[in-house]
Amino acid sequence: MSGVQADLRAVRADVARLHAELVRYNLVAWTSGNVSARVPGGDLMVIKASGIDYDEITADQMIVCDLYGNAVAGELSPSSDTAAHAYVYRHMPSVGGVVHTHSTYACAWAARGEPIPCVLTAMADEFGGPIPVGPFALIGDDDIGASARAAVQAAVMCEDVARSVHLARQAGEPIPISEDDIDRLYARYQTVYGQR
Amino acid sequence: MSGVQADLRAVRADVARLHAELVRYNLVAWTSGNVSARVPGGDLMVIKASGIDYDEITADQMIVCDLYGNAVAGELSPSSDTAAHAYVYRHMPSVGGVVHTHSTYACAWAARGEPIPCVLTAMADEFGGPIPVGPFALIGDDDIGASARAAVQAAVMCEDVARSVHLARQAGEPIPISEDDIDRLYARYQTVYGQR
Amino acid sequence: MSGVQADLRAVRADVARLHAELVRYNLVAWTSGNVSARVPGGDLMVIKASGIDYDEITADQMIVCDLYGNAVAGELSPSSDTAAHAYVYRHMPSVGGVVHTHSTYACAWAARGEPIPCVLTAMADEFGGPIPVGPFALIGDDDIGASARAAVQAAVMCEDVARSVHLARQAGEPIPISEDDIDRLYARYQTVYGQR
Amino acid sequence: MSGVQADLRAVRADVARLHAELVRYNLVAWTSGNVSARVPGGDLMVIKASGIDYDEITADQMIVCDLYGNAVAGELSPSSDTAAHAYVYRHMPSVGGVVHTHSTYACAWAARGEPIPCVLTAMADEFGGPIPVGPFALIGDDDIGASARAAVQAAVMCEDVARSVHLARQAGEPIPISEDDIDRLYARYQTVYGQR
Repeated sequence: MSGVQADLRAVRADVARLHAELVRYNLVAWTSGNVSARVPGGDLMVIKASGIDYDEITADQMIVCDLYGNAVAGELSPSSDTAAHAYVYRHMPSVGGVVHTHSTYACAWAARGEPIPCVLTAMADEFGGPIPVGPFALIGDDDIGASARAAVQAAVMCEDVARSVHLARQAGEPIPISEDDIDRLYARYQTVYGQR
Repeated sequence: MSGVQADLRAVRADVARLHAELVRYNLVAWTSGNVSARVPGGDLMVIKASGIDYDEITADQMIVCDLYGNAVAGELSPSSDTAAHAYVYRHMPSVGGVVHTHSTYACAWAARGEPIPCVLTAMADEFGGPIPVGPFALIGDDDIGASARAAVQAAVMCEDVARSVHLARQAGEPIPISEDDIDRLYARYQTVYGQR
Repeated sequence: MSGVQADLRAVRADVARLHAELVRYNLVAWTSGNVSARVPGGDLMVIKASGIDYDEITADQMIVCDLYGNAVAGELSPSSDTAAHAYVYRHMPSVGGVVHTHSTYACAWAARGEPIPCVLTAMADEFGGPIPVGPFALIGDDDIGASARAAVQAAVMCEDVARSVHLARQAGEPIPISEDDIDRLYARYQTVYGQR
Repeated sequence: MSGVQADLRAVRADVARLHAELVRYNLVAWTSGNVSARVPGGDLMVIKASGIDYDEITADQMIVCDLYGNAVAGELSPSSDTAAHAYVYRHMPSVGGVVHTHSTYACAWAARGEPIPCVLTAMADEFGGPIPVGPFALIGDDDIGASARAAVQAAVMCEDVARSVHLARQAGEPIPISEDDIDRLYARYQTVYGQR
């Protein structure tokens, strides 16, 4: 088995597994939503097949595509969002993963076109500032990351703070965190968190 | 085993299994709610027996009825909503499945008699416009579909957008999606989604 | 084994099992909440031992008490709410089960001392009218029923409608259901629901 | 195996196990949040390693630290919150456990800098008054307790009442509980709850 083949196998297994996190954190309903990953060292990406049940996801249903969204092997059709993911990989070389969700609270902010203000230390840690919302586009609402796992983490944390800040504002005004404190929290978190 | 017998067996197994989706998406409480399906090629339908625990649902508890709601075999009583399901099958030949839920957010919109405006791309994809609410009737709040699975999918997506739009409106006005964009999203989704 | 002994064993197993429904429907947090049942044909009741983990509940931890709340056997202390349950059984002979929960939405209505108006057909079916709230008392918030299972069902449905009506009112005024329609729904539900 | 070694092993197993409660009650997202415990009879504490998946937590990933937050054994880095936990143990000898969560509703109150008023009997039982919120600090939002289990219980109950009181206030004013009644409820709960 060549190195690229082994890589493909590992990426497909990883992407299949990450879909379970979307279900666990209630970021998707029915068969909506998907995770994709760039294949290291090739102009390829891996993305979920379209319309697959989350309960039955296997690595075999993760489709290898080129960076224009064309499937390069297999018989299943890739996600209907593939072209949008491919566009991101083609134009943003530092992006290693993209996730598309229907997150309840994040969608509520997005439906109003309103960025989420940075009023929680966890937001400062993770995002280093407000979470912006893009202008309306026919396909939208993706989280990106250095890897597929990082993109899923961003989606999970985004929904978490979208919910807390929504609730905080229902009963009054959240206290702003100063930009200096946000910078300090973000810097600290990049340095001290996780295992080296 | 005749063809009709084999069909009945498959439909009953399918309908039993779909009830688990109502539980998973929190669309029902206790023993409320039910899924039914038209039996292909006969004036028959299959519906859950009344008052059955969701944990213990088996295909044997799915009751075969005629399209006036009379059980044609077995000793269990069919759901107390059977007559309403039967009425739909009798009058709408294109309907293959009906699902009755107590979905929290959808009920909240229905209790105010208010349709859900189409302000999310996922709504445009799935429903192609606002979700209407019927006038008050003693039995009501059913989702229909070309199959039992399609009806359950509609119920799941309906609750999902009912929740997001409810939350969006709590903090301001959602941005409308133009009718042209809704039409384009809906057309695209019918074409590109799922496996051929 | 005498008849009373066999009854006690069955009631204790049933009460232990019903606690899992409180967890499933998120009606309790940590070790709070409890279910009790009257023992048929004796001045006895069965209630959960105090401070027991829901994950580890067994029939052995269900304590047999007299109708003044005194344990009549075993070494575990019964729930700290036992006297309140016993009071109900002593004064209301038709009550066969009592359940005490910390249901989120029901507590929210109760904290304002506000009854839940009957604006959902499911409420009319189950409760036949608004759900009243008692005056403040040092121990309170119990659901009762003809059996322990009926009391748990009432608690589950109460929280379900407390949530939907809360959400309905957040965005406007729910449409009232006429008293005649409520009566008709309630009468129908008592007659046609479940297995004979 | 010495007594201290046996103690360490038991504390690490206990702390590992308690993290599952944070997941069960939705008090954490992704790898955020942590539980720590003081080791009885030594100037030591045990805390989760940084960035560990909740699904895969084992006692081996619970790091033994001194009360300045330095790991005293093993190769994994302790939680990035370790210094804050250590500070509490160093300055508050009666504290046996600390838990750091990202609880949704508690965070919503904290983001507004607003204490939770005591308007539920369950709050009076558990907390004996309003739940205060500390001033903003770069690291914050910890629950403490006489043991790690007591700290987790406090975090669970805190979120539970944060949610109910939030919802109660959305639709009007909760009825205050008099200080006398709060004192009586709290005193009763300390005395009669649980097994002796």
